[in-house]
Amino acid sequence: MTVAVSDRPLDLVADFPAIPEGWAYLDTAATAQKPRAVIDAITRGYDTTYATVHRGVYQRSADMTLAYEAARANIAAVIGATSDEIVFVRGATEAINLVAQSWAAQNLKAGDRILLSMLEHHSNIVPWQMVAERVGAAIDVIPLTEDHRIDLDAMAAMIRPEHKLVALAHVSNVLGSVLDVAKASAIAHSVGAKILIDGCQAVPRVTVDVAALGCDFYVFSGHKLYGPTGIGVLWARAELLDAMPPYQGGGSMIDRVSFERTTYAPAPTRFEAGTPHIVGALGLSAAVDYVRAIGLDRIHAHETALVREARAALAHVNSIRVLGPDDSAGIVSFVMEGVHPHDIGTILDESRVAIRAGHHCAQPLMAALGVEATARASFAVYNGPEDVAALAAGIERVKRIFG
Amino acid sequence: MTVAVSDRPLDLVADFPAIPEGWAYLDTAATAQKPRAVIDAITRGYDTTYATVHRGVYQRSADMTLAYEAARANIAAVIGATSDEIVFVRGATEAINLVAQSWAAQNLKAGDRILLSMLEHHSNIVPWQMVAERVGAAIDVIPLTEDHRIDLDAMAAMIRPEHKLVALAHVSNVLGSVLDVAKASAIAHSVGAKILIDGCQAVPRVTVDVAALGCDFYVFSGHKLYGPTGIGVLWARAELLDAMPPYQGGGSMIDRVSFERTTYAPAPTRFEAGTPHIVGALGLSAAVDYVRAIGLDRIHAHETALVREARAALAHVNSIRVLGPDDSAGIVSFVMEGVHPHDIGTILDESRVAIRAGHHCAQPLMAALGVEATARASFAVYNGPEDVAALAAGIERVKRIFG
Repeated sequence: MTVAVSDRPLDLVADFPAIPEGWAYLDTAATAQKPRAVIDAITRGYDTTYATVHRGVYQRSADMTLAYEAARANIAAVIGATSDEIVFVRGATEAINLVAQSWAAQNLKAGDRILLSMLEHHSNIVPWQMVAERVGAAIDVIPLTEDHRIDLDAMAAMIRPEHKLVALAHVSNVLGSVLDVAKASAIAHSVGAKILIDGCQAVPRVTVDVAALGCDFYVFSGHKLYGPTGIGVLWARAELLDAMPPYQGGGSMIDRVSFERTTYAPAPTRFEAGTPHIVGALGLSAAVDYVRAIGLDRIHAHETALVREARAALAHVNSIRVLGPDDSAGIVSFVMEGVHPHDIGTILDESRVAIRAGHHCAQPLMAALGVEATARASFAVYNGPEDVAALAAGIERVKRIFG
Repeated sequence: MTVAVSDRPLDLVADFPAIPEGWAYLDTAATAQKPRAVIDAITRGYDTTYATVHRGVYQRSADMTLAYEAARANIAAVIGATSDEIVFVRGATEAINLVAQSWAAQNLKAGDRILLSMLEHHSNIVPWQMVAERVGAAIDVIPLTEDHRIDLDAMAAMIRPEHKLVALAHVSNVLGSVLDVAKASAIAHSVGAKILIDGCQAVPRVTVDVAALGCDFYVFSGHKLYGPTGIGVLWARAELLDAMPPYQGGGSMIDRVSFERTTYAPAPTRFEAGTPHIVGALGLSAAVDYVRAIGLDRIHAHETALVREARAALAHVNSIRVLGPDDSAGIVSFVMEGVHPHDIGTILDESRVAIRAGHHCAQPLMAALGVEATARASFAVYNGPEDVAALAAGIERVKRIFG
């Protein structure tokens, strides 16, 4: 792994074998490319140290169990948490569903309300709709400010004791808007509501400390943090996790099973039925090491600078409307008059610039913005000014073609 | 990949880099080691072709989507199914929970009954207990024959119209007993019940064709089929899958989301919320290729021969009681008078023989067998007669130590 000296811009693309020379990969908000250190950790997990965890009486399995639990502790530390509050899940989507189906199904009743925002990803909307329908709860939606942030003044005015849960994105996957989580948590707690934060786009981009944020649940996906697919994290305050009923039944999550009566293991084990994604945890731990060695403050500064450059370049084009606040983190969405975002994406692809075009799993936000879709460029540690230049040149080509 | 000529015994250990010379790995029923071809497919997925699926407008993502869906079709074929009936899940445990929380929660009501057997893995007990408690259903348990098979005569005598679902293991993870699934399916269907088969230990060991078996749901885990961790398969008849309500909400599984009303995508997409374990699917597809190139008939013959040898060697020791039927598939459990299975496992480990000792996530079966735990040896394509010899020599050493 190469880590640049701290007073120079990041130049890490050589760590990423799947990014060929001259390819501007600007779809990290969908999924991040993997550094060699992560791929090597995964390979080693299968070709050298492979065994099951928690069960074997032989040395290899005992060693793998230690490595797996060390990975949990290492991953916990990246958000300022401890191991016993970390549940491994498939991704942030499953983490939110787990909280909805376990905590919310137990704690919400008919007449209760859930508070979301207009910019949430479908994964932070649909699970709440499903549990609301099951228990008879209702959903309210916080509007956005003019510069496309979650409007915390509106939130403070809307919230009432019927709200038992608030669920908000830390960083918008479409706009890059950063939420003041500490303030949102204080507003939620003022009426006794719990608050869940979707940290998918935040954990790779800003320093996260769940204690300082004051939230109750925090979720993120491994594959967006330079880690493997198929693994993610639910963090919950220990006292909440301890009181939550099981989510999936199976091996490992039990204390004792009989057909008459089954008792369950303590958290987090109670929420991890079946053989876990063992090598996924090892890979994600390596990803956390990679990010930590660079430093999240440097990553944030690097990406914020690139976004600022990209916003300036895009705003320069008359027919383009740049969305989101100026200080958005790593992500910029835009629309171009008379050109469908999919066409922008396709033409950019011909210039070896990979962006995302579509509703970004945020259809209510699209409706609020008055668009069907946006073009979105998102940045990571492997991007540099040359990628912004490639994006700008590609957009010039779109203009010529549609001119 | 090396595939032995068909009239010679399998000798494939060289394909498995994590098995060092002289290590008898006999814990495949817990998890299988991975052939180089699978590890290479995983590495390639991360270091060469990596991108997200189903969303990108750029070529790399379109290519990955094709590869991911080709993997689904290839994996479907190994159980005689088609792509649109295959849902990717974390593992068999999640697959069973999905059926319990989606199909069973919708179709079972108070007074209905679920029929299981005494030899089920906890993953095929606890999810049914959870949904039974939720809807007010009851659970009945099929006893075992004297040679430790699920007693299908008893099943036929017990079953009645209140039974809406039967869930049974194709191959017992403790005893290796093979179920006559076609017969069990016919009995289930005679009262209109659906039948789910836990194929975790069967798919790596016997030829499976869901059409011939006549079952309604079939589940298995990738990591027990020489594939990566964190991925598994739920197969369900298309008409059942189509009618099932969503399980987890999120991105990709929706048709259209608004705060007023959300509609869902068709199956199997409806059951795959969020970014999937993309590289897991590629790895599992490579594992299916590996197994198919050898041939499941040859694998079955190979493992059955090893189990027969192992049973004979163990039965030779007076203080050992060998469990399960003589024709068990790939798995043999035993107990030794006066020696706890954990001590057997620990002493064997010193001789570089890795077995499993414990309740094998089948505590009701342990109770029925009148034991707290068993020692279990399980075989795979990479094992040979030398591993049986190592097991036998290790057991001699246990005898000497405890003699």
